[in-house]
Amino acid sequence: MNNSEYRKKYEQLVSELKKVSLFGSCGSVLGWDEQANMPPKGGEHRANQLSLLAGMGHQMATSPELGDLIGELEALKSFDDSEEPEAVVISEARREYDRSTKLPQTLVEEISKVTSLGQQAWIEARKNKDFSAFQPWLEKIVGLKREEADAIGYDGGQPYDALLDAYEPGASTAEIDAVFTAFRAPLVELLNEIADSPVKAEAALLERSYPIDQQKEFALEAAAAIGFDFEAGRLDIAAHPFCSGIGPGDCRLTTRYDEHHFPGAFFGTLHEAGHGIYEQGLDSEWYGTAIGESASLGIHESQSRMWENLVGRSQPFWEHFYSRAQHYFPTALGDVPQVKFHQAINDVRPTFIRVEADEVTYNLHIMLRFELEQLLISGDLAPADVPEVWDEKFTESFGITPPDVSQGCLQDVHWGHGLIGYFPTYALGNMYASQIYNQAEKELGDLGQMFAEGEFLPLKVWLNEKVHKNGRRYKANRLVEVVTGESLSHEPLLAHLRNRFGPLYNL
Amino acid sequence: MNNSEYRKKYEQLVSELKKVSLFGSCGSVLGWDEQANMPPKGGEHRANQLSLLAGMGHQMATSPELGDLIGELEALKSFDDSEEPEAVVISEARREYDRSTKLPQTLVEEISKVTSLGQQAWIEARKNKDFSAFQPWLEKIVGLKREEADAIGYDGGQPYDALLDAYEPGASTAEIDAVFTAFRAPLVELLNEIADSPVKAEAALLERSYPIDQQKEFALEAAAAIGFDFEAGRLDIAAHPFCSGIGPGDCRLTTRYDEHHFPGAFFGTLHEAGHGIYEQGLDSEWYGTAIGESASLGIHESQSRMWENLVGRSQPFWEHFYSRAQHYFPTALGDVPQVKFHQAINDVRPTFIRVEADEVTYNLHIMLRFELEQLLISGDLAPADVPEVWDEKFTESFGITPPDVSQGCLQDVHWGHGLIGYFPTYALGNMYASQIYNQAEKELGDLGQMFAEGEFLPLKVWLNEKVHKNGRRYKANRLVEVVTGESLSHEPLLAHLRNRFGPLYNL
Repeated sequence: MNNSEYRKKYEQLVSELKKVSLFGSCGSVLGWDEQANMPPKGGEHRANQLSLLAGMGHQMATSPELGDLIGELEALKSFDDSEEPEAVVISEARREYDRSTKLPQTLVEEISKVTSLGQQAWIEARKNKDFSAFQPWLEKIVGLKREEADAIGYDGGQPYDALLDAYEPGASTAEIDAVFTAFRAPLVELLNEIADSPVKAEAALLERSYPIDQQKEFALEAAAAIGFDFEAGRLDIAAHPFCSGIGPGDCRLTTRYDEHHFPGAFFGTLHEAGHGIYEQGLDSEWYGTAIGESASLGIHESQSRMWENLVGRSQPFWEHFYSRAQHYFPTALGDVPQVKFHQAINDVRPTFIRVEADEVTYNLHIMLRFELEQLLISGDLAPADVPEVWDEKFTESFGITPPDVSQGCLQDVHWGHGLIGYFPTYALGNMYASQIYNQAEKELGDLGQMFAEGEFLPLKVWLNEKVHKNGRRYKANRLVEVVTGESLSHEPLLAHLRNRFGPLYNL
Repeated sequence: MNNSEYRKKYEQLVSELKKVSLFGSCGSVLGWDEQANMPPKGGEHRANQLSLLAGMGHQMATSPELGDLIGELEALKSFDDSEEPEAVVISEARREYDRSTKLPQTLVEEISKVTSLGQQAWIEARKNKDFSAFQPWLEKIVGLKREEADAIGYDGGQPYDALLDAYEPGASTAEIDAVFTAFRAPLVELLNEIADSPVKAEAALLERSYPIDQQKEFALEAAAAIGFDFEAGRLDIAAHPFCSGIGPGDCRLTTRYDEHHFPGAFFGTLHEAGHGIYEQGLDSEWYGTAIGESASLGIHESQSRMWENLVGRSQPFWEHFYSRAQHYFPTALGDVPQVKFHQAINDVRPTFIRVEADEVTYNLHIMLRFELEQLLISGDLAPADVPEVWDEKFTESFGITPPDVSQGCLQDVHWGHGLIGYFPTYALGNMYASQIYNQAEKELGDLGQMFAEGEFLPLKVWLNEKVHKNGRRYKANRLVEVVTGESLSHEPLLAHLRNRFGPLYNL
């Protein structure tokens, strides 16, 4: 009786959770469309639409009926193993319900509307290199995110924890701070060694003419080869590339093309395809529940960075793909030996733009943002002072100073979109990627040899089974433990960087 | 006191109506995306999304609170002039609310489900030229639409009126029947004269190679020239072309390209741009209320057919645009004199497919469907007998017999989609277009001379002011009276057809 009652209520919960996800996924279509298609004058109406959906979605996710249902299920059954899938469905429903109910409806709607408009303001401000046009929006957004942090609550006096938790459930500012601190010194040491190396990559090769139509075809070919299913997804253009998993059978990648910058669209597409392969690998039977959702943004990023960097910038990958590159770009690459191309795509040097950064300096870009975001949220940094402090700290870390805000603090979409607490997940992703990749190699054998023969599916299928199919059964750090037997560490990433760049730079 | 109470309630109503429209417009984005972008495997998830939104939207539009608000406003104020905008906002809110609440939720859901499946059955049946596979669905759909008509109610024993009213508010079967009857004989006479003319257009010119990229550029150029604002809209590809006005500042056109059929995409784009110019001309201050919405499908079609045919297939239009056509298609049109091209795009001959029909025969296609739909809804024609009756009546009207059902009664998407009562609005649109166009010419002077000089904005701006800005302040037939001083008539359309095709065919 107790059990059949549990079963009935559990099915009811799943059906409610699916409805919440399904409704949320309507907003995802509108969000994707806003970036990929929406005509400029549609911005205000879109902001109104998204704000309405956000409000209604929030209402749905915080309905007393849903809360009661979760409470009843908690009372009806206690699980011996809290990592059993149904136990996780219920406990994660509880975690999300509690998080949502802490946020007042008005705040949710306000954040949705302000960030939709803020993002449009950011686009203009970046284009015009005019921070002052964005500053009032950043002020509003930081204010709202501080309200959000207060509403959610946090232990130990770190409001940033409350924001971080939305993207990386279970992670803490202190834990990330510790791993970043341990990572920084050896990273800077490696960077200095590379800077002192007499070897210089001919990065200018990548600025030759790479016709955009061919870039697109090549990117599509490579994304399909690593396992992204284009029957269940597509690739479009957006100012700021992203991947949006609309729902089962529908995942949207975006990228941007620059005729005179080959790596942007190509590695950007591999990156987003990595996200997309994760989304496509989620178990649609569990759609709407934690088991059918990604574990965290850090794990998400581990998948994108793995395909972009560990695979896409590896020597064996180009063993297979370089002749295709020369086929698509005979003028630009016909006279370029593979080894020179490979050096060029692995050129390490301090640059201004995070999304174009090499694998080594990338992590420093994240550390800068992590530091500034904490200051903004604690109130120790006023939004008005961001450009100055950005430039100062950037110069300290990189030895170069951004010529303008579009190459400095206005380069990223995140803040205008209200995504504060998101950046650190990128660096976590780099670390997780190396940890997971090492394990895959242990279990599958020489991955490089497979790539050289154009075989990418063994790795993809392994990731499907070991990582994707688990959904959010485990929190990120626990998932990495389950998959690799080891907890979060910067060391495998550091080892990878030394292994890759040591030989390339004769260190 | 009474007045301030009215004001407060009125603002509340407007806010509720805006919310209903805003919510509906989210579904429009998903609907557009389904046709323009969605990857094949996303179909099931999209159906789930749309069904959820439809259900929630219906709930919103039939909420007792909305009904109470309308009732309170009706009690608080009676208007001397029922065509005053605020009076119309309230009376149209009442009309729509009553229409929605008359439909039981179960019927709405059943129609939604059956027409979704019916459409899929139609696609297969048309492909296989197999009416029997569609027949059970048509039976179900006709049955449900008869139930719908009964639920809505109708005066004077014509259930078809109740269906028509959804697309052409205020129109009646009898009125349309009268005007179609008056139109038919002179139309057939004109068609016979054209058939007997020794002049034959070289329509094969239009089947030469017209590269798709150039078709697209040319279509974009022409649509922009007639006044479609691409800062507030875009043009994409869809299997079944349509225009979707998402909301203020955002209107989506779609078309389809065939390298060997020039008119399809070009006139299709002008047609959809005509719809789009109407949508863009709606007063965004009144968004969500009847004053900010289009008057009817007939008026909508008057705008699309005006730009497609009265403007786009006119001699002066090509006086301006033919050199551009030759610029875009030097191989196909370099050796073709303008007069031959103009004859080709105005080729009149009986054909099987409505959407490819010329301006003359098009109306006969509609009359056939109007007749059959009434018989289906009155119960005097069994769905099983549709193919036989279709072919018989088609042969009577056109002198040719469809070789199979895919070119006969299965050619259109409408019935499988449950859109019964929709077809007559196409022919009404043709008539309204000529009436409105004549009035524009009376007020603006020689439009042809303007077109020849590439000046299309005077007509567009006049339509904005006279037609679009009124929204649904007036019902369609009343709007045409207000704009032109005359009521619905086939005579201006007939005169236009004689004026255009008389000279072309030496009649």
